[in-house]
Amino acid sequence: MNSLSEKKSAGIVKTEYFTFAEPPEEMILESGDRLGPITLAYETYGKLNDDKNNAILIEHALSGSAHAAGKHHPDDKYPGWWDEYIGPGKPFDSDKYFIICSNVIGGCSGSTGPASINPATGRPYALDFPMVTIKDMVNAQFHLVKSFGIKKLLAVAGGSMGGMQALQWSVSYPEMVNSCIAIATSAYLSAQGIAFNEVGRQAIFNDPSWNEGNYYGKDVPAAGLSLARMIGHITYLSEKHMHEKFGRNFQDTSKTSRRINSEFTVESYLHHQGIKFVERFDANSYVYITRAIDYFDMQEDYSGDLAAAFEDANANYLIISFTTDWLYPSDSAKQIVKALRVSGKNVNYTDIVTDNGHDAFLLPGELLEKNITNFLKSQYSRLQISEDN
Amino acid sequence: MNSLSEKKSAGIVKTEYFTFAEPPEEMILESGDRLGPITLAYETYGKLNDDKNNAILIEHALSGSAHAAGKHHPDDKYPGWWDEYIGPGKPFDSDKYFIICSNVIGGCSGSTGPASINPATGRPYALDFPMVTIKDMVNAQFHLVKSFGIKKLLAVAGGSMGGMQALQWSVSYPEMVNSCIAIATSAYLSAQGIAFNEVGRQAIFNDPSWNEGNYYGKDVPAAGLSLARMIGHITYLSEKHMHEKFGRNFQDTSKTSRRINSEFTVESYLHHQGIKFVERFDANSYVYITRAIDYFDMQEDYSGDLAAAFEDANANYLIISFTTDWLYPSDSAKQIVKALRVSGKNVNYTDIVTDNGHDAFLLPGELLEKNITNFLKSQYSRLQISEDN
Repeated sequence: MNSLSEKKSAGIVKTEYFTFAEPPEEMILESGDRLGPITLAYETYGKLNDDKNNAILIEHALSGSAHAAGKHHPDDKYPGWWDEYIGPGKPFDSDKYFIICSNVIGGCSGSTGPASINPATGRPYALDFPMVTIKDMVNAQFHLVKSFGIKKLLAVAGGSMGGMQALQWSVSYPEMVNSCIAIATSAYLSAQGIAFNEVGRQAIFNDPSWNEGNYYGKDVPAAGLSLARMIGHITYLSEKHMHEKFGRNFQDTSKTSRRINSEFTVESYLHHQGIKFVERFDANSYVYITRAIDYFDMQEDYSGDLAAAFEDANANYLIISFTTDWLYPSDSAKQIVKALRVSGKNVNYTDIVTDNGHDAFLLPGELLEKNITNFLKSQYSRLQISEDN
Repeated sequence: MNSLSEKKSAGIVKTEYFTFAEPPEEMILESGDRLGPITLAYETYGKLNDDKNNAILIEHALSGSAHAAGKHHPDDKYPGWWDEYIGPGKPFDSDKYFIICSNVIGGCSGSTGPASINPATGRPYALDFPMVTIKDMVNAQFHLVKSFGIKKLLAVAGGSMGGMQALQWSVSYPEMVNSCIAIATSAYLSAQGIAFNEVGRQAIFNDPSWNEGNYYGKDVPAAGLSLARMIGHITYLSEKHMHEKFGRNFQDTSKTSRRINSEFTVESYLHHQGIKFVERFDANSYVYITRAIDYFDMQEDYSGDLAAAFEDANANYLIISFTTDWLYPSDSAKQIVKALRVSGKNVNYTDIVTDNGHDAFLLPGELLEKNITNFLKSQYSRLQISEDN
């Protein structure tokens, strides 16, 4: 395996757009509402082989986008959100696999969402956008995957909300998913998770520019969205990591400067994260996507029997949690693992020891790298052997 | 010990007001600013004995008040905030001890705070109120305690921010504190704690009625303060307790009613807590008191050596933490215990197993009751023996 310093980039990449072409050019959502036309933003890295059996679908988290690896311009300051793990010689190896990362419906990074034009009115949907669920996001991606002529994905993979989508793929399209990599996630959101999402939404609703979501072309609810992001960021870090990173340090170190509105370093960090987020994210999408996460519950239709939910899945699973992740604690992963084992599935599970909290799935980590690399290698070689027979 | 059902109430009580009477009738605060005149709201339960050695000072938490036990009117729906633990036959036994609970300066329940009239302007202080610290709160209470002719407190006790004050009392006035009961607290606030306080403050600052704190006589920043309280409440409950209490239940149970703005039970609970809080609390006080908590750091003046901070204390300590308290985790208490032991103090420590999280110090709990009851009994009898000799 290459060491971190030797890793190569996926290079200069471009976001592409897929619009549902075949009639009815719309989807019936889980709520019963119809949504159309539908566009999905996506990127691909590597090449689809002739057997079309080396495709991996990458799923992003709440604030992610289709831009998972490489850079759009040579002078981009940062690469895609999972560049640590996607690229030549990396765990999702673009020299070997064909990697697709699709933005979700409801999002604001090129896919159809609340900021898109509602064909019924000619104006942005805003809160007239129908409720979308994790299942709906997956159903939309199904059309994108089919458009490549792919019959079976080598793997579906993601962390956090991306992990929810990966799990959902494995039960919504069992015949299309060879393996599923679900990291730092849960089969349903906890009450605490719902609570954190709700205070974030309330921060947006309280913003004087909110205007029931009809702020397009006017001032956006920047302070509210920024605060929602600040709240989110607290939950992404472990208490220990936060204390080691920021401690009780002040921006201005002179003690006499400490007044009611002085800034601790941790506050300055959160303010910065909030402000940065507003530049790239839409408040309505934040409301819709957090709601989709809230509503995710794989066991709901099975009277709380999660094993029954996985009954018809055909995938092999790699489940990973992080010891200091308190937003999606290791216990959530262990529930998934237990249910998969009860339903007779093949499952690899690792609880990775780290101080990095929920954010660990986005950060460099040798154990996470090795787990993904070797799981995929094994899946790919098994798939080829079974196809040869 | 009486069982819970047999416990008696402190009865009908009244909040009293103590105004600094002796010149200079003001305090020099830790910041160097002067504050005066100063009034403290307080309540007492039980009788001060002739030796004046049975007095216990109770310290409240962020949102507390002087009203710790009994009721103000027979038809009050709820008693004082620590009624479980204060009253005849209860751990803080008003048949035996003279119990004082003082509201803090900076507060909004009768003590001098940002809503008080600034003598320099004739208008409410608002953000012209000087920054107050935990040490300042304790220094103000010193005057109240002296006004009773009390030379030594049998105990100073509190949970959360109340525990910070109790610890501070034991080092600010070592000759006046016989024993210290600090529950669910820390010797300094963690970076995560600061972060949660800050997002609460930002919720207030984002409220269109905030007006830099000058909202008295106008609309108060109700939505912001309510949201700050909602965020706080998430941190007071354990993830497990929250899930057991609310799960993923909906207010409206029909599945077809689930839309973008449907309500989970946990959301409804938080909204209710937020709205209730606005009726009784002032947003400026929330800002000032959370800042006082942020700034609390007993080891800061001792180069991070907490044992050195306790060097001159003369108190015996009872330190209590709760296994599921993630706002003030057991490790915070263990740091205090370790420092007290290094500095040669007499310390009792219990890490109480509970699902109730930080809120456990306010809820009925047999182990908490027994720990306090027996610690106080032992302290009181030792004090009497040493005075007899």
